[in-house]
Amino acid sequence: MGDTINGAQSVVQTLVNCGVEVCFANPGTSEMHFVAALDTVSGMRPVLCLFEGVVTGAADGYGRIAGKPAVTLLHLGPGLANGLANLHNARRAATPIVNIVGDHAAHHLQYDAPLTSDIVGFARPVSNWIVESKSAGAVASDVARAVQAAKAAPGAIATLIMPADVAWNAAARAAQPLVDDGPARVHADTIEAVAKLLSNGKKSALLLRGNALLGAGLEAAGRIQAKCGARLMCDTFAPQTELGAGRVPLERIPYFSEQITAFLKDVEQFVLVGAKPPVSFFAYPGKPSWGAPDGCQFEYLAQPHEDGAQALHDLAAALDAPAEPKTRTQLALPDLPKGKLNSLGVAQVIAHHTPDHAIYAEEAATSGLPFQMIVPRARPHTHLPLTGGSIGQGLPLAIGAAIAAPDRKVVCPHGDGGAAYTMQALWTMAREQLDITVVIYANRSYAILNVELQRVGASGAGSKALSMLDLHNPEMNWMKIAEGLGVEASRATTAEEFAAQYASAMSQRGPRLIEALI
Amino acid sequence: MGDTINGAQSVVQTLVNCGVEVCFANPGTSEMHFVAALDTVSGMRPVLCLFEGVVTGAADGYGRIAGKPAVTLLHLGPGLANGLANLHNARRAATPIVNIVGDHAAHHLQYDAPLTSDIVGFARPVSNWIVESKSAGAVASDVARAVQAAKAAPGAIATLIMPADVAWNAAARAAQPLVDDGPARVHADTIEAVAKLLSNGKKSALLLRGNALLGAGLEAAGRIQAKCGARLMCDTFAPQTELGAGRVPLERIPYFSEQITAFLKDVEQFVLVGAKPPVSFFAYPGKPSWGAPDGCQFEYLAQPHEDGAQALHDLAAALDAPAEPKTRTQLALPDLPKGKLNSLGVAQVIAHHTPDHAIYAEEAATSGLPFQMIVPRARPHTHLPLTGGSIGQGLPLAIGAAIAAPDRKVVCPHGDGGAAYTMQALWTMAREQLDITVVIYANRSYAILNVELQRVGASGAGSKALSMLDLHNPEMNWMKIAEGLGVEASRATTAEEFAAQYASAMSQRGPRLIEALI
Repeated sequence: MGDTINGAQSVVQTLVNCGVEVCFANPGTSEMHFVAALDTVSGMRPVLCLFEGVVTGAADGYGRIAGKPAVTLLHLGPGLANGLANLHNARRAATPIVNIVGDHAAHHLQYDAPLTSDIVGFARPVSNWIVESKSAGAVASDVARAVQAAKAAPGAIATLIMPADVAWNAAARAAQPLVDDGPARVHADTIEAVAKLLSNGKKSALLLRGNALLGAGLEAAGRIQAKCGARLMCDTFAPQTELGAGRVPLERIPYFSEQITAFLKDVEQFVLVGAKPPVSFFAYPGKPSWGAPDGCQFEYLAQPHEDGAQALHDLAAALDAPAEPKTRTQLALPDLPKGKLNSLGVAQVIAHHTPDHAIYAEEAATSGLPFQMIVPRARPHTHLPLTGGSIGQGLPLAIGAAIAAPDRKVVCPHGDGGAAYTMQALWTMAREQLDITVVIYANRSYAILNVELQRVGASGAGSKALSMLDLHNPEMNWMKIAEGLGVEASRATTAEEFAAQYASAMSQRGPRLIEALI
Repeated sequence: MGDTINGAQSVVQTLVNCGVEVCFANPGTSEMHFVAALDTVSGMRPVLCLFEGVVTGAADGYGRIAGKPAVTLLHLGPGLANGLANLHNARRAATPIVNIVGDHAAHHLQYDAPLTSDIVGFARPVSNWIVESKSAGAVASDVARAVQAAKAAPGAIATLIMPADVAWNAAARAAQPLVDDGPARVHADTIEAVAKLLSNGKKSALLLRGNALLGAGLEAAGRIQAKCGARLMCDTFAPQTELGAGRVPLERIPYFSEQITAFLKDVEQFVLVGAKPPVSFFAYPGKPSWGAPDGCQFEYLAQPHEDGAQALHDLAAALDAPAEPKTRTQLALPDLPKGKLNSLGVAQVIAHHTPDHAIYAEEAATSGLPFQMIVPRARPHTHLPLTGGSIGQGLPLAIGAAIAAPDRKVVCPHGDGGAAYTMQALWTMAREQLDITVVIYANRSYAILNVELQRVGASGAGSKALSMLDLHNPEMNWMKIAEGLGVEASRATTAEEFAAQYASAMSQRGPRLIEALI
């Protein structure tokens, strides 16, 4: 850059200085100076998405795998609004993300032009940190603080609103990164207290989340289990888990209220490591939302902002736990299925053929139950589920994961109803030639709602009601949709076809979609 | 219904009582009692959409054409969030819409389950009226007030948040509609003052919006013009205009700042009829946002909540205007183009072949300039543009318009970039077999941004920047996308092909998509 830079250039340079190197974007007029700065500043990779829900979901996938924020570039209030649902999911995942939202120049706001809106209002429900930048000279400072806020453990959504005049006016200089201390260390007194608790002979469970579910954290949890016999659990939708052969096995808390109650009925005390007490996803008439038995005790080993993995390591030491976990997952690859294709067969094929260290961006919904039973016993992998219940996250999540880990195969097993929300993501997979295999469970239904309709006790449902849960009329043809968006696609109607198509996808790089008719 | 109804049934029955008879929906678990009530209460037509941006955009199109609200059914905060961008557009159009957003049962909120969010926070930037219903016994009252609020002139967004327990608990009874007085009548003193102003010999312009642009309102404006010589104008993105042969011609204010300045340079006084003073869409460095010349005077004949059409009628009487407008649009059907297809040729074919009283849900962006020159001189029609600048409105808008006016042909000329936002709308067109012809201007570009990049003075743009505006890699195949979503589709590469395909679409009913390679 020359001696004179504008605000947008100072923003992009500051992001790069702070280690932010990927920008998921759908820009408009008010963001054109930021766009131009992508060429005058080096070090930022822009990734265009056709819809902002793809932008924010991709940033979530990137942040979970890279462990640091991407930046999103969004066009005023409505551009942010389109990205809110996946920011809700990202907030539930505690993923670090920096949003940069363009706005009108300050002097233009008074006229209430058509695109004017309450951007802070849109941002507030999903943002942990918000600033409206007011000057080109100081916006670099705002950016440095936004990155710091996003990186603050366990990870946060930071939203910076950048008016067009802040982008185009002359700036002082870019800013340097602020201190990043990492997550707080849990105090020794807490470690000792939990060590004592786990030695009291009661039936214990460790509920893990965040870095407690990864690598060293999970190893330490396995050592504690070896010493104390505690069950090791994760939330139904734990944002990231490292599963598969060789890893310490986890029990995943089930989805429905009464399943949770049965699953937890023997637990006398919980040790929470970055997690909250388990509750049901929805409320149902006459069923409990609270998952734990009456009288069950809760202790927090680590709060979400604290270093759960380190705390587990310290706890294992305090307990004088053995050097190795007692149990590790044994590789169990299922045989390939034959004949009629169903969700079990899909899971068997995936487990059989997926290579080591794949990443699953999984939004399989009801079809995912066999997946969750079979795949955790297959080759080692990382699992990224839908975290906030807002469907349409899986495809964008896969984009971000693939960009964060270009040497790992990304597999995206996805329900058809949810995939329809953000089908535009396929285009970005093609554009960036990402190594993603999408598997669509084409059951032509919001299948979960057929279950829920009964569970909530909604009586009297007839043809109108049932039609609201049914996607048969018309049947989406995912092969054509994918090809229309530039992704090589095929359709499998039998288990043999699916196995052949999936094996082919695993043996090559690049985006593929397989529509599994189940 | 039997003697005992639940809250959801009281909601649906109250909506029907208040004349709300179409529900655009993408429901989830918390809305299952509402869904079941669609069968136990008669009179509500549910229309399923694959994404909430389609739900809200369809409600906008319905409200504009039907002149009364549809209800949307949305799944908690993220479901609402996905619909916000098109609610922003609807708010700018002053379209009456009632949103019903499900939420967790009250006792479940304390647990901060994954789908919990600040729904009021999401709703506030786009809603004129919000209520969180708290009891099944009283929710019918909230619904009656929501419908009244939505219908209040000129039309408003009313959002009702319905917790699951409010839906499933026992209700008292449905409510009856509240008084609907219609828009306020402008006081005679104001009529007299404006009549006097228009007789002062200065160069005047009437800027019309709302019902002033429809039927009797526009006729009265034409009579005033015949008496006083005032120019008749509408905003660049007036939500609804009735144009074409036999109608009083309107001048549409242009888009860019300097074009507006030139267009208005001779105007000495503005009479605003439901409109605001003209301003530019975006701000540009060194260019004015304010459109009118220095010293130009503004008078409000009618505020947005007042009856602009009646005020024009009263004003024409006060001016003793002639009984008929002086000028009416003469039918001018262009010849069919030949050879290479471009946006001019597309407009010529549309003007040539579209039957009387079609509705255009138009989001043609840069490709729409020839459309705006040619089609207003063709057969009489209604024009619905993108009102709030949030692209991805046209396809959903067409759905709502087609449901509100099943006997009218709906044509949706759409830029490819914007259409990619809400392509899922095609599925609902197929499902409901709506009489919509979609024309995709496939220029493989966010073409407007290539213009804007220069206009805002963003220098230094190179390959990275330009790639953010370009949709060639990969090229979307809209024929496959449409077929994948159940809509009959074709692709035109020459003017002759386009003319043949478009003529075919006009000669039959049902959804069609034509990808025009321009």
